[in-house]
Amino acid sequence: MPDSVKRIAILGSTGSIGEQTLDVVRALADRFRVVGLAAGRNVALLAKQVSEFKPEFICCSPVGGEDERVRAHLASSGCEFLPLEDIASHPRVDLVVIATSGRAGLSPTLAAVKAGKKVALANKESLVMAGEIITREAEQSGAQILPIDSEHSAIWQCLNGERQKAAQLILTASGGPFRDYSLAKLSEVTVAQALKHPSWRMGKKVTIDSATLMNKGLEVIEAHWLFRMPFDRIRVLIHRQSIIHSMVEFIDGSIKAQLSYPDMRLPIQYALSYPDRLPNPRLPHLDWSKISSLTFEPPDLERFPCLKLGIEAGKKGGTYPAVLCAADEVAVELFLSERIRFTDIPRFIERTLEQHEAIAQPTLEQILDADAWARERILRLASGDERC
Amino acid sequence: MPDSVKRIAILGSTGSIGEQTLDVVRALADRFRVVGLAAGRNVALLAKQVSEFKPEFICCSPVGGEDERVRAHLASSGCEFLPLEDIASHPRVDLVVIATSGRAGLSPTLAAVKAGKKVALANKESLVMAGEIITREAEQSGAQILPIDSEHSAIWQCLNGERQKAAQLILTASGGPFRDYSLAKLSEVTVAQALKHPSWRMGKKVTIDSATLMNKGLEVIEAHWLFRMPFDRIRVLIHRQSIIHSMVEFIDGSIKAQLSYPDMRLPIQYALSYPDRLPNPRLPHLDWSKISSLTFEPPDLERFPCLKLGIEAGKKGGTYPAVLCAADEVAVELFLSERIRFTDIPRFIERTLEQHEAIAQPTLEQILDADAWARERILRLASGDERC
Repeated sequence: MPDSVKRIAILGSTGSIGEQTLDVVRALADRFRVVGLAAGRNVALLAKQVSEFKPEFICCSPVGGEDERVRAHLASSGCEFLPLEDIASHPRVDLVVIATSGRAGLSPTLAAVKAGKKVALANKESLVMAGEIITREAEQSGAQILPIDSEHSAIWQCLNGERQKAAQLILTASGGPFRDYSLAKLSEVTVAQALKHPSWRMGKKVTIDSATLMNKGLEVIEAHWLFRMPFDRIRVLIHRQSIIHSMVEFIDGSIKAQLSYPDMRLPIQYALSYPDRLPNPRLPHLDWSKISSLTFEPPDLERFPCLKLGIEAGKKGGTYPAVLCAADEVAVELFLSERIRFTDIPRFIERTLEQHEAIAQPTLEQILDADAWARERILRLASGDERC
Repeated sequence: MPDSVKRIAILGSTGSIGEQTLDVVRALADRFRVVGLAAGRNVALLAKQVSEFKPEFICCSPVGGEDERVRAHLASSGCEFLPLEDIASHPRVDLVVIATSGRAGLSPTLAAVKAGKKVALANKESLVMAGEIITREAEQSGAQILPIDSEHSAIWQCLNGERQKAAQLILTASGGPFRDYSLAKLSEVTVAQALKHPSWRMGKKVTIDSATLMNKGLEVIEAHWLFRMPFDRIRVLIHRQSIIHSMVEFIDGSIKAQLSYPDMRLPIQYALSYPDRLPNPRLPHLDWSKISSLTFEPPDLERFPCLKLGIEAGKKGGTYPAVLCAADEVAVELFLSERIRFTDIPRFIERTLEQHEAIAQPTLEQILDADAWARERILRLASGDERC
């Protein structure tokens, strides 16, 4: 295998980011080799991926029933079964794609970071929950954290080659499907409506987070850690067309922006190919004959309080961001299972945050404790509320 | 003087770009030292600049009458009078700003390039007329050509840190004051109307060139030479707000854009400070609460044939671009002195180009001959036409 071939492991390979990562690898097979794949419960899809990409290591959750046969088949495929953390830190892996969603991404992210890997990070929660620990570990090990989120990839691309720190980061947000809804109308929103994002194709959790703007709150915290930027120099701008993915303002007032159609395969590929760019005929190119206007407007924190909650939790720091994350994860699940309303999501997250007794500069254990506390607390608040 | 202070010479210091360059130096006096100033006939303003910036060398045109006293005063100021080319190539100069307009910029540009200087180039004509010679000389001497034009500065900023060549350059154009005029209305345009640019504050020649879109045609040729980009991968997009100054598309489909208010001091400062950026409180920062929409549309080559003439002359190469430049310079003068109509500008330039017998890979002498031929030819065409 030539030196230029990167050996990659994809954790969360059966999710939306995982599948799109494999699509990039498929198009650029001479540059990347999949050596590790890890999935949760979708072992049938994992088995398909294994037979196509022939990784050396795999990981999946214990399953039962029908899937047990698939698992047995996987076991006979010649791949070694390893825990997530062992794949993330394996000496035969150059770059780890963390596409696992939610809290489950934290432990393998830390393992990859400690092992000094290139870590292509799509998982928001790990940096939000434990940004201080992860960035400190990365400094010590020399690990590179390469953002896959389109906004952070845009910022990273704009910072490329610049000697001076940015003066300001401008994160763009589509505003989600309900950007023009009144507060009254927001309270009537259905799950099906919330899952229809106007521009991006994503997993369920992040699609709901985009509709509440919590996604942007989490991204502000991520940007704070990734680019070491104070919160008062990170701003959010609603940009409905999702063409400008974010911008950086420099100390001389010059701004750079990164543009493309909303297609996650581009930031995924950039994280994989960095510092090079590679041609990929599968990626769409902007057609300027079809783009007549790009619009910008300030976010409305009254109608979308999750953004404010996110930024405030980030500013307070300590265990607050972990509580924010955990409460949001549960609140979104409750909404998806139709147990709370769309407008209840920020309400319950806010109450959970209010009741939290935070710890400054927490250890990993304290972060996980805060996470567990928040999950239990918001469930209680919601069920108490149901009883009212 | 500390190492970090750049010694700069400004050729064309009394023009619009020259004055704005001095404004940048005024704000960043600890980083730049003006060692040379050169002006044309505006010796009174030059004398003011000399007393403020105390350069070591100056140059100005021979003058008579009132100004002769100013010139005598200048001679007693302790500055050395030198020819333009000697200032441009002087060992005590690190960086030369070529803000001289028209053909007069060519000779000092070549002198600075041959001397291996950093050459901050605002003069379009030198690259358009002699792009091949200048870029070849720069390669040999190690001179860096640093664009000051806002479009080329934008492209240069976007290319910063990128390893791969661009896939496409997208030059933006405001469209000028007549972007919505019909052909009939264009033929009635007055000089005063043409000198009112909707977004940029510039000299007369470039303001008229912006109104005809010839400016963009010249910039396409400049971009071709500066970034070694084939003409079929340079496109022009009308962007009325003049906020995005140009864009670069990369091989993976990602696009980077550079944004700011239209203020020439930013690209001037970037050329001076590169590879650093410096904070300058005089430079405006974009106020996103006032920018609600950025629009894009294709240029109309029917109403603005100068753009097409420019690109075609660039593609044909040889002495055609020199003829284009010279004919345009004369045509603009004829329009400014109200001897021809606005719509005559492209008409006479086109006829001049048609009558030209081009030379491929011309020497500098052949380029200057073509320039002289074109000036005479278009004058005759215009006066012949007047007699009709």
